[in-house]
Amino acid sequence: MVLKDVNLRKRFKQHAAKCSPGQVVEGVRRRISILNWITTYDREAMVTDFIAGVTLGLTIIPQSLAYAPLAGLPSHYGLYAAFMGSLVYVIFGTVKEVSVGPTSLMALLAVQYTVDKPIDYMIMLAFLAGVVELLMGIFKLGFLVSFIPIPVTSAFTSATSIIIIGTQLKHLFGIPSNARGFFQTVYSLSAKITQFSAGDLVLGGIAICFLLALRQITKIPVKEDTAGGRFLKKFLWYVSLSRNALIVLITSTVAYRWSNSGEDEVPFKLSGHVKAGIPGFELPIHNVHVGNETIPYFEVVKDLGSSLILVPLVAILANVSIAKAFTAGKIVDASQEMIALGLCNIFGSCFSAMPTCGAFTRSAVSHSSGVRTPLAGMYSAIMTLLALSLLTPYFYFIPKTTLAAVLIVSVAFMIDFSIVDTLRKASKMDTLAWFCCFSVSLFAGVEVGLLFGIFISVVGLLRTWVRPEIAQNSMERAGTRYVKLSPETGLFFPAVDFLRTKVIQVATEQQVPVVVDCSTVIGLDHTSAKGLKMLADELGKIKQQLVLLNLKPGLRKLLVDGAKTADSTITFWEDEAAASVAAPAGTVQMIA
Amino acid sequence: MVLKDVNLRKRFKQHAAKCSPGQVVEGVRRRISILNWITTYDREAMVTDFIAGVTLGLTIIPQSLAYAPLAGLPSHYGLYAAFMGSLVYVIFGTVKEVSVGPTSLMALLAVQYTVDKPIDYMIMLAFLAGVVELLMGIFKLGFLVSFIPIPVTSAFTSATSIIIIGTQLKHLFGIPSNARGFFQTVYSLSAKITQFSAGDLVLGGIAICFLLALRQITKIPVKEDTAGGRFLKKFLWYVSLSRNALIVLITSTVAYRWSNSGEDEVPFKLSGHVKAGIPGFELPIHNVHVGNETIPYFEVVKDLGSSLILVPLVAILANVSIAKAFTAGKIVDASQEMIALGLCNIFGSCFSAMPTCGAFTRSAVSHSSGVRTPLAGMYSAIMTLLALSLLTPYFYFIPKTTLAAVLIVSVAFMIDFSIVDTLRKASKMDTLAWFCCFSVSLFAGVEVGLLFGIFISVVGLLRTWVRPEIAQNSMERAGTRYVKLSPETGLFFPAVDFLRTKVIQVATEQQVPVVVDCSTVIGLDHTSAKGLKMLADELGKIKQQLVLLNLKPGLRKLLVDGAKTADSTITFWEDEAAASVAAPAGTVQMIA
Repeated sequence: MVLKDVNLRKRFKQHAAKCSPGQVVEGVRRRISILNWITTYDREAMVTDFIAGVTLGLTIIPQSLAYAPLAGLPSHYGLYAAFMGSLVYVIFGTVKEVSVGPTSLMALLAVQYTVDKPIDYMIMLAFLAGVVELLMGIFKLGFLVSFIPIPVTSAFTSATSIIIIGTQLKHLFGIPSNARGFFQTVYSLSAKITQFSAGDLVLGGIAICFLLALRQITKIPVKEDTAGGRFLKKFLWYVSLSRNALIVLITSTVAYRWSNSGEDEVPFKLSGHVKAGIPGFELPIHNVHVGNETIPYFEVVKDLGSSLILVPLVAILANVSIAKAFTAGKIVDASQEMIALGLCNIFGSCFSAMPTCGAFTRSAVSHSSGVRTPLAGMYSAIMTLLALSLLTPYFYFIPKTTLAAVLIVSVAFMIDFSIVDTLRKASKMDTLAWFCCFSVSLFAGVEVGLLFGIFISVVGLLRTWVRPEIAQNSMERAGTRYVKLSPETGLFFPAVDFLRTKVIQVATEQQVPVVVDCSTVIGLDHTSAKGLKMLADELGKIKQQLVLLNLKPGLRKLLVDGAKTADSTITFWEDEAAASVAAPAGTVQMIA
Repeated sequence: MVLKDVNLRKRFKQHAAKCSPGQVVEGVRRRISILNWITTYDREAMVTDFIAGVTLGLTIIPQSLAYAPLAGLPSHYGLYAAFMGSLVYVIFGTVKEVSVGPTSLMALLAVQYTVDKPIDYMIMLAFLAGVVELLMGIFKLGFLVSFIPIPVTSAFTSATSIIIIGTQLKHLFGIPSNARGFFQTVYSLSAKITQFSAGDLVLGGIAICFLLALRQITKIPVKEDTAGGRFLKKFLWYVSLSRNALIVLITSTVAYRWSNSGEDEVPFKLSGHVKAGIPGFELPIHNVHVGNETIPYFEVVKDLGSSLILVPLVAILANVSIAKAFTAGKIVDASQEMIALGLCNIFGSCFSAMPTCGAFTRSAVSHSSGVRTPLAGMYSAIMTLLALSLLTPYFYFIPKTTLAAVLIVSVAFMIDFSIVDTLRKASKMDTLAWFCCFSVSLFAGVEVGLLFGIFISVVGLLRTWVRPEIAQNSMERAGTRYVKLSPETGLFFPAVDFLRTKVIQVATEQQVPVVVDCSTVIGLDHTSAKGLKMLADELGKIKQQLVLLNLKPGLRKLLVDGAKTADSTITFWEDEAAASVAAPAGTVQMIA
């Protein structure tokens, strides 16, 4: 007791020390990641970051304009998210490559919960998801992400990509449609296929070809032994990287000229008015007004339902995966990443941003641009801000079919069916999880598919605790015959009845003592301990004894306490050598 | 491939043989348990069963009258359930002690889903629960029951008992109240406590004292050396057993006399009209009419929601537990028990019965009455039928407070807080599961509490797969220093990132090779295999190598396939002797 008190006092003091003002300041300071590296920031890093940031800006602007409509929002909401995401991550982020902003994943996941709802819903979702992310970071709950296995991530990503392509087809074909989801859209399109607009389809087709071609131009063999060759190589690389910006620029210039030429109407649909500037600060905690109706805030929260867990979970998964992919061999501070992402969403939503997370494609752009610190995001943020203040009049002319082409080409390469073959060889449960997640995502929505895939994977884990494989071996030592049962893992409550049935069956059929090998038993709970005691009782009634081999001493205590009935005796063997020693005294007696 | 084909053909033939008409008849016959024992049924068994059956009848009739109102139904619905449950179990049941009929557990669980709904809801729930039980039996899904550990069962039972006592207090005090749930009832009673009826309270108090006293009379020391002594012992035992029937008989006789004496009104509330006879057969699949409204059948099913899984699960759990408790040392055919229970509910509901399951108290009565076969149930069924046809006019006079006393005394002994102390010593997770299940049951309803308790216990199981304990040992063999990491269990997808982080941390800090002991690894999934490959890559970048000790050969294959990148090499050690052997060639190279 004294020892305990001393420990308690010590821990209390340690805790008190942690809570001293100086420590708190230090703790907060440690969370503001920029303070860790900004003091050693030099000119060379600045130049490299500037180039990377501008390159990133050329990717993020057209992507944001496309992702916002995917989430059912006007295009400028994507830019708000890109601006705030990039800026806040500069301050709190730890991985230089990560680019936080709107992503197709977030757009498609969030829209499932906010479809046909006012725009406020999306912004409130961003805010609450941010709060959840922040809390998960503070309470180090990031391990929850480990419940999403690769097959599920892969199936979810493939399904998301297919759905996005499905929904973008309407813009590509220029067919007006309100259908949502993959099958509805495809069905509604095939019904109205004769109404397709040649202008949209031709321009979209050209844009897709252009994008696919520019993806490939870096592969053109260029001799790098001259300065000109090296420049050409670099130039091709840069052209390839800015292909999204280029196609948007080219097609909107065409549209601009066409509509100003005073000739016919532009033969393809344009994005229309994009609002200039950044909206003012507004904390997204308020009632929502729709026409004359008022939806109380708590109703909104209730409507958002499971998205409040699912959206943060997927966002964190994406961020942490990207961080890990680009920091091989180093440990990612996952908690800090969650805090950074949470703050990106909280601050973002106060300026009307949609939910954000790290984007794999953009992070790859940053990486190949040689980014040095998260400060690169600042330059992208500035470019986004410039776009919002200066370019919005021109955004009007961006053809919808171009944005559809940008989306289709970028997600098409995320579809990966080759994994199924690998999975089939490795594990049935993984294959099942993949198929279920994939098909449920397509038929019932990505959020249901994701949950379903996780559910199946978790059930796969539980299976081992319910029905462990039990190896059965007939043994003989020093003239004593016995059957050894070795469960592959154990022994928690779901498996105890299974083991009991097996032991009694073997004991009754073979009429020899049964020895249970407990070397894989890592713990006992109340139910399994009680089950073993009952098993000892039952064996006692048929004049046998329960023998446990290799059970950890700490766990034996649980079985001995309160098991002092006449019938039930449990014998413990340290190792199988005990068989021969115990034979005259115990084992033979057992089958008497 | 040839081997596979032969196997397939063999299995097909076996399957075809199983499906032949003869085999099907045999299979069905095997399921009709009565056919297995009725041919050897003798006169002695018949006499014993008769006595046990009548004794059981004396318990089941007053219990049924009390449980039906607990489920929000008129009393006679309890008798329908008792009649059909007893009768059907005779044919399909395997455990002679089990008495299927209304139970407090089923009543309280079912009423959570059917409160303020028409009576049809309860009967439809019984039917659908029966179908689910039958299907679970046919598809051998009984293992699902193993997901309900003892702490949760115990907390659930204690909470149920307390809630039942709480709800019965209104009858005991004679205070009219429509409140439901423990706290609401207690609150509403304490608000109206001055309106209590002296007659109800006095009679209820007497009944409780009477029941408690009669519980104890078997403990009166009687000398059994004379015939008279033996008879007295037997007589006291029988009086104690029929205490419920006795108190109901006595108090209703008092009420009958009182009301026929033409004096004052009876000073306590009576049960009122009980309908005579058994209702006609009606398949409970139809729309429900409430006033002028019609509720379509599928709406009813939707309203019943999770009860369609929870009610069968709890019923099966109760039945299987009872069966196991009374058949120590023998294996219970859990599937057959599920089929029997399912048929009891399906047939029962066609005659307007409420949901049923085995009752522990009644099964104990059967057991101590020396029951020989399930046929005893037939005599109880006949008694119930007689009660329904002859006694219903007298049921009118059963005081409500008496039935409340019967319920309170029988459930009071099911409250068990002593388990908490045992749990605290054994396992934190069990203690947490108990407290959560108990308090959530009281505050939010038993069905939520039960689910919550199961959820916490399952999370406890998953914890091991997410954060296995990893023992860390510094080793030295033949001049090679290395660190051995031994995870207690593994290695499925949720833990792989945890292990990776740990390995990299140790490798970076200590600058010696890290050997992961995989002797407890029972399987790898796609995610964990990929994680290990990535770990090998990451270690490669810091000029180290991943060494896996004791990994099962079957699992190695998963790691070698497709891992042929330049950086990643995984070394496998059969045992630690390999350390010294591998040292010059491999291990030393590793840290170069």
